[in-house]
Amino acid sequence: MSPTAERVRAGDHSTTTVDRLVAEHRPGYALQREFQVDPGIYQLELDRIWRQSWLFAGHSCEARTPGDYFLFDIDTDSIIIARAEDGRLHAMHNTCRHRGTKVCEAESGHVKRLVCPYHQWSYGLDGALLACGGMDREDGIDRHDLPLHPVAVEEVAGLVFVNLGKNPSGFDAAREEIQSRLAIQGLEHAKVVAVRNYQVKANWKLVWENNRECWHCNVSHPEYVRANFDAARLDDPAVRQVIAERSDAISERLRDHGIEIDFRDPGLTPFPTADRWWSINRTPLVEGFVTESVDGQPVAPLMGGYRDREVGTLRVRTMPNLWHHSSSDHSMSNRLAPAGPGVTRVQVQWLVDEAAVEGRDYDVERILPFWQRTSEQDWGLCERNHGGVMSSAFTPGPYSRKREYNVIAFTEWYLREIGRGR
Amino acid sequence: MSPTAERVRAGDHSTTTVDRLVAEHRPGYALQREFQVDPGIYQLELDRIWRQSWLFAGHSCEARTPGDYFLFDIDTDSIIIARAEDGRLHAMHNTCRHRGTKVCEAESGHVKRLVCPYHQWSYGLDGALLACGGMDREDGIDRHDLPLHPVAVEEVAGLVFVNLGKNPSGFDAAREEIQSRLAIQGLEHAKVVAVRNYQVKANWKLVWENNRECWHCNVSHPEYVRANFDAARLDDPAVRQVIAERSDAISERLRDHGIEIDFRDPGLTPFPTADRWWSINRTPLVEGFVTESVDGQPVAPLMGGYRDREVGTLRVRTMPNLWHHSSSDHSMSNRLAPAGPGVTRVQVQWLVDEAAVEGRDYDVERILPFWQRTSEQDWGLCERNHGGVMSSAFTPGPYSRKREYNVIAFTEWYLREIGRGR
Amino acid sequence: MSPTAERVRAGDHSTTTVDRLVAEHRPGYALQREFQVDPGIYQLELDRIWRQSWLFAGHSCEARTPGDYFLFDIDTDSIIIARAEDGRLHAMHNTCRHRGTKVCEAESGHVKRLVCPYHQWSYGLDGALLACGGMDREDGIDRHDLPLHPVAVEEVAGLVFVNLGKNPSGFDAAREEIQSRLAIQGLEHAKVVAVRNYQVKANWKLVWENNRECWHCNVSHPEYVRANFDAARLDDPAVRQVIAERSDAISERLRDHGIEIDFRDPGLTPFPTADRWWSINRTPLVEGFVTESVDGQPVAPLMGGYRDREVGTLRVRTMPNLWHHSSSDHSMSNRLAPAGPGVTRVQVQWLVDEAAVEGRDYDVERILPFWQRTSEQDWGLCERNHGGVMSSAFTPGPYSRKREYNVIAFTEWYLREIGRGR
Repeated sequence: MSPTAERVRAGDHSTTTVDRLVAEHRPGYALQREFQVDPGIYQLELDRIWRQSWLFAGHSCEARTPGDYFLFDIDTDSIIIARAEDGRLHAMHNTCRHRGTKVCEAESGHVKRLVCPYHQWSYGLDGALLACGGMDREDGIDRHDLPLHPVAVEEVAGLVFVNLGKNPSGFDAAREEIQSRLAIQGLEHAKVVAVRNYQVKANWKLVWENNRECWHCNVSHPEYVRANFDAARLDDPAVRQVIAERSDAISERLRDHGIEIDFRDPGLTPFPTADRWWSINRTPLVEGFVTESVDGQPVAPLMGGYRDREVGTLRVRTMPNLWHHSSSDHSMSNRLAPAGPGVTRVQVQWLVDEAAVEGRDYDVERILPFWQRTSEQDWGLCERNHGGVMSSAFTPGPYSRKREYNVIAFTEWYLREIGRGR
Repeated sequence: MSPTAERVRAGDHSTTTVDRLVAEHRPGYALQREFQVDPGIYQLELDRIWRQSWLFAGHSCEARTPGDYFLFDIDTDSIIIARAEDGRLHAMHNTCRHRGTKVCEAESGHVKRLVCPYHQWSYGLDGALLACGGMDREDGIDRHDLPLHPVAVEEVAGLVFVNLGKNPSGFDAAREEIQSRLAIQGLEHAKVVAVRNYQVKANWKLVWENNRECWHCNVSHPEYVRANFDAARLDDPAVRQVIAERSDAISERLRDHGIEIDFRDPGLTPFPTADRWWSINRTPLVEGFVTESVDGQPVAPLMGGYRDREVGTLRVRTMPNLWHHSSSDHSMSNRLAPAGPGVTRVQVQWLVDEAAVEGRDYDVERILPFWQRTSEQDWGLCERNHGGVMSSAFTPGPYSRKREYNVIAFTEWYLREIGRGR
Repeated sequence: MSPTAERVRAGDHSTTTVDRLVAEHRPGYALQREFQVDPGIYQLELDRIWRQSWLFAGHSCEARTPGDYFLFDIDTDSIIIARAEDGRLHAMHNTCRHRGTKVCEAESGHVKRLVCPYHQWSYGLDGALLACGGMDREDGIDRHDLPLHPVAVEEVAGLVFVNLGKNPSGFDAAREEIQSRLAIQGLEHAKVVAVRNYQVKANWKLVWENNRECWHCNVSHPEYVRANFDAARLDDPAVRQVIAERSDAISERLRDHGIEIDFRDPGLTPFPTADRWWSINRTPLVEGFVTESVDGQPVAPLMGGYRDREVGTLRVRTMPNLWHHSSSDHSMSNRLAPAGPGVTRVQVQWLVDEAAVEGRDYDVERILPFWQRTSEQDWGLCERNHGGVMSSAFTPGPYSRKREYNVIAFTEWYLREIGRGR
């Protein structure tokens, strides 16, 4: 459908506004209030970012077997990700080509065909229209013209990404790097053992800003900082020494397994950057923590190719909607999606090896608390942040170059994307 | 009040948009997404359709006795329909001419005068201002200038219609036809025995489209299709034969009562049409069903002028907000009103003869399920339809000429009305 | 922050609309519908009225001791009112100068410093930035540039007012008059014993209009009219005689205490007026009522400088958001704030002498009902009024010059303020 004149006009208006705001933005300072609350800018973000980027949708194991599917909602768009008979994943808009009805309602399921409940138009797991109640014969329509609107989809090392754009940017570079580092985690042979869904009353960018620094961690995240060096004193040589020693020990012991600690600084890996929308690296945990659990002790059997419990944490982030932490025994993925200028949907998922048996090999109640508490602590901060940004008196304040360099990097990434006008 | 410049400007904008969308609409295909979700188009619909058309408001028996009144809400407008001492119905906007307060709050009631609860301005049942606390003497206002804003109202065979427009289109042709066919049902001597109110989260047009075809019936409406031929195989000569025989039998037996089966096709009577906003016809029920109840057996005494239980169903539809089914023993009216681009208020009412006694002559729990289930099955479909139409990827699909001819007719009716710019 | 082009454009649009509506308004008649429902006009009201006027925020005793603070929300703005070590009150926007987070979440509290929960930026009770995690050293920012955005604040006789404007209008004339009349009430040595918060679904101006006349009192406020002369027959010489006698008796007896009944008419003191946004006066109660309680009997010990129970009621109103009634033994303050075109937040508070002991000297359940019932009766009327004004058929009706002179005065005040374009 060609954009309507009205949308073009609204687009023009918001485009002018955005161009001015981008020009007026003061580097090193927070985004202006309009970016967080203006409905027109929000629509532009959907067009320029959320419908143009590779979005983390879920895990390969959520649609493990042909016929399995799961849904992923972005604003008012709903995407079906399904595995077809040939074992390949397909992604499609969840809107029937007849009268637009949502074909799938359940968050996930197993089906032979995707059948619209309204008039039983039936689609293959690849989205092809297979039956339309005879309209192809009677009304002369060509079924090949009416597949579910396709969405680009990619799998890499057990992670599933979709791209709603007409000309998705390349995925190969991301695939290569993520595959080479993440394969050992064995996510393709994992299973989701817990899911928590949240409606965070904050703009999605404030949720990202929260994730991109650990200045707030020492006070707000007692569980997290006991296990991680993210909030350690950046300029303390003793800390650097501890990290280096732990990194060397793991890297040396496990180099022949293809495991290397490649991020050895206190604080966070620089991300996002100008050249890549993805990032993956491994970093050590604090002494006494062999996994990201509350007491640091293992909570499930080893995953994937690991032969040792002490492997640090493997972390993946992709713009604009994923952060992921893997320990040797379990993984956690955090998926974002906007649901309005002031609402962000977040899904947190926990995975273990698919062969592990609950009750015998793991106990969900031991796996969950570390990231459930950390996440919920963050949602509270994000909502309070959004509440204050709604003040008519709000003015963007300065970021700390030492502790919020990634928040600065995030605003730069955002201003490039939103200003791009692709 | 003359339209404000702002509304005119907003109107200009939406008018331009609508003109373009009407021109771009592809005949035989669904309406474009903007028609279902755009707030400006919704306002234009209020102006051009809902405030210009004859709207089904309720039944004569809901205001049987002088002093009885009931309310009918359309968007943020509230209409009072009251019976005056002379036995005639009057309709008025439910907003006091003093400071605008809602005069009536209860959905229905019995009063001597309509008294505003704020400062006791008192109006006759015809809306005339009778008392205003002496302001006529003290402030020199003329009470005759300040009646409740009048609304055109018509009664026909026990149905009540209102028209919010300044120059309502003629009602005589509709009256003549409905009166001659519906009078035998005796709705003027009926009573409402059950009411169900719904807030359906779907645009009102999607609710109409749902009603204008029975392709979805076989799978979604098990109760309905057992009793009716609407979803029967259209091209099966045997079905046509059965319908013809049942129609002939009833028509012959009851011709001297003025009863004739005039719709003898499988499927739905063509409606809406270019020349009329109303339609009434009688059609047979399936063998074994003497009324639209779950088991097909009678659920109440005969109504009106009937002397025989097997009379098929008498059906009335009026654009933009009524469908009505009458059996020999009970009637069901379904009233729509918009409450926002994505919300439709629906009221379903069931009526029996006024002399029938609950417990002795009828049991509400036997009357309700047929239409309550059918209605609620439809609201689920409508909401799922709306959910999918909200997708940014939605594109209007083709309608079946064989099974959705009335949906096509509905879109044509709609495009005429919304494009009219009256 | 300089107004954005978008806000200027939206402002231009609404300004044009407002100018036209102000010009079209018919004197002596209700405000046009747009004033009550249009979101653009609502934004203009925030800019021109709510962010330019002296707003009643609360009582001195709500922040009695250095370190005490309380919050006051206007639309999406949140204001902190805190008492500093030097005993002076300070008011500040509740949005951290770092990333905008709400610094205070609890409605009131006691703190040494105002510490943002996100990154522990710490502010003095006067709003000065005291610590920012070292960013002043590391990032070269000057802490003096980053206090919490200040808000003008004034205390007078135990009432606290704030002004969000950059150049607040003078407060001295109001202070002088309120101080001289209200000091005897002893509000500086009072305590809040009950609070009720309401979300009234009506535009704030309809809430004011409700308060500015007592025509509706006889029917709607049985408790209120038994105690007060506000709704007494204006033109009954006998009533005037009673009021005069009661006024003389009190004034003569208490003149040497500085107490005088200065409003001796039935009905309401004229307010608002063109020259003052505040008003204070004392008026007698009906025989048998020594205080505004349901039975007219005392409900608490004498407050402030009173030595006699029969002192009438002392009333204060300030535009745009306070009305206050004081009896000899307790006080009631009613604070408004807008929360959208169709929602008004109201806080009602009751105060007694700070030395009074619950259970021994007073019982909250005897103090509350008079104003709790009167208030809640009004919220019902206001919501019904708003519901009717939302009708597309609403036309502004005439006000009674005899009984709604203050509603007329209110509309005149409003049209001056909103049309001013400061």
